[in-house]
Amino acid sequence: MAAFTFGWIEADGTPREGSGGKGMRPALAVLSARAVGAPPEAAVAGAVAVELVHAFSLVHDDIMDGDELRRHRETAWKAYGVGPAVLAGDALLALAMGTLAQASGGDAVAALARLSDTLVELVNGQADDVAFENRPWSGPEAVTVEEYQEMAAGKTGSLLGCAAAVGALLGGGPAALADEMARMGRLLGIAFQAVDDLLGIWGDPATTGKPVFNDLRQHKKTLPVVAALRSDTEPGRQLADLLETGRPLDEDLLRLAAELVDRAGGRDFAQEQAETHLEEALKIIESAALDTAAAGELAALSRYIVRRSH
Amino acid sequence: MAAFTFGWIEADGTPREGSGGKGMRPALAVLSARAVGAPPEAAVAGAVAVELVHAFSLVHDDIMDGDELRRHRETAWKAYGVGPAVLAGDALLALAMGTLAQASGGDAVAALARLSDTLVELVNGQADDVAFENRPWSGPEAVTVEEYQEMAAGKTGSLLGCAAAVGALLGGGPAALADEMARMGRLLGIAFQAVDDLLGIWGDPATTGKPVFNDLRQHKKTLPVVAALRSDTEPGRQLADLLETGRPLDEDLLRLAAELVDRAGGRDFAQEQAETHLEEALKIIESAALDTAAAGELAALSRYIVRRSH
Repeated sequence: MAAFTFGWIEADGTPREGSGGKGMRPALAVLSARAVGAPPEAAVAGAVAVELVHAFSLVHDDIMDGDELRRHRETAWKAYGVGPAVLAGDALLALAMGTLAQASGGDAVAALARLSDTLVELVNGQADDVAFENRPWSGPEAVTVEEYQEMAAGKTGSLLGCAAAVGALLGGGPAALADEMARMGRLLGIAFQAVDDLLGIWGDPATTGKPVFNDLRQHKKTLPVVAALRSDTEPGRQLADLLETGRPLDEDLLRLAAELVDRAGGRDFAQEQAETHLEEALKIIESAALDTAAAGELAALSRYIVRRSH
Repeated sequence: MAAFTFGWIEADGTPREGSGGKGMRPALAVLSARAVGAPPEAAVAGAVAVELVHAFSLVHDDIMDGDELRRHRETAWKAYGVGPAVLAGDALLALAMGTLAQASGGDAVAALARLSDTLVELVNGQADDVAFENRPWSGPEAVTVEEYQEMAAGKTGSLLGCAAAVGALLGGGPAALADEMARMGRLLGIAFQAVDDLLGIWGDPATTGKPVFNDLRQHKKTLPVVAALRSDTEPGRQLADLLETGRPLDEDLLRLAAELVDRAGGRDFAQEQAETHLEEALKIIESAALDTAAAGELAALSRYIVRRSH
């Protein structure tokens, strides 16, 4: 099941070409080790651990969200059943901790402690995300942009921050520098989530592997939607009216909803948030005491993460 | 949901009297710290961590097994839904690692590494247990007693072993002594599982909180059943015939199945296994270099764990 999750096999066990993800968390870990002057190998246990934690969170989140498709394929619970998928997620998480627990060199202990703390943040972020589903679309109880960004910092930013920090720690970087790298990764994560939310509405199904308007179809409270609803604009109010009916949206209504989000400024806002947080992350990369070549690659990775199309 | 899991509240939030478990894993951790000469406080982070891991495993296992009752109450997934229960389990596990990551004193690092390794064992044990469900009741593909005991060592023994080892490590005990304590706890876990399996068939519903013959009702391959099926006796063959039909067993057939397990020697075998493993654990407690008073309490706890009625 883990092999299926990583895209290495089909659900029936047939080997499969291609990989199952962008691998940006391990890339971040390895580049962070190089950025503090260590060879890339120093970060491997950390790179593996953060990718395993990421895989764990996808498997369990898909169960909670009832998502049936990911990366153009069935999700694990859809292919294997909920019980086995719960266990597969647990196994991925256990293996992540076990892998990092056996790491040596650098400050492996601090790395393990950081991964443990990250898990708590990750789960709190996911819990907030789930709780948002039960909040109203408008009025004083509606989700605010600040609440949304805090959720994104936990759900997405914490693990990217952890990847960067763990790479720096395993590479022997000082704790203060690892903290800087964590802050950089967290900013990237918030930017990444904003882009993910944009792609969840306007992404090309051929590259995202999900149906068009997928997040709107599922009535998800993502950043462009939250921003549109809080915009105090006419399109924002129309969007709230449409979503508050709670009924399934057909293709025409989905197109209308997406247009209302756009006209209310939600699309631009999410795009600006992505760029702003990317710029902040790049500033940290520039100002921290890092290996120049690796810092350049880190900056390129950061731009790729935020300016990707899928 | 975590408070519900620990028995502190009802599902609707009403506070509730009483506790939610025997607390034997934290007791083992604290006594193990005392046994290596440390004050009980030294083990608290470890005690909390192992109990949280235990709570995590119960919440997720109940989802996988489809169990609707635990400790006289609804299970978490039954009360709150599968998605929230998956997340609550993840949160308990995250908190376990986070708690131990913040421990200081003794060899906190080794304790965290041990908990990480334990998670891998725990998940493998649960995976074996789930896989056993799809194995035939008789013939060469049937589960062997050795396979069952290996599963029990992973699923139950690993965390009891971890509790003892973590207590010893946080108490400043040497690594070799922690290994001994781990072995002791693992033996206790295997004994505990045998008793649990006996109670799963013959336990009093008033004290176990589960229906009589519960494990037979659910067609679970527990130690007394596996031993009976492998006994090469007439009652063992009759039991296989009965279970191979795969149909639900009514009260009369449940009583018959339990009697066949007993007459095939499965009940005595499980009881003997419990006693044998308890004796081995007690020998380690006697021979290891431990504080005498704490060792006496450890022995008493060990006997309680194995000779309990619920």
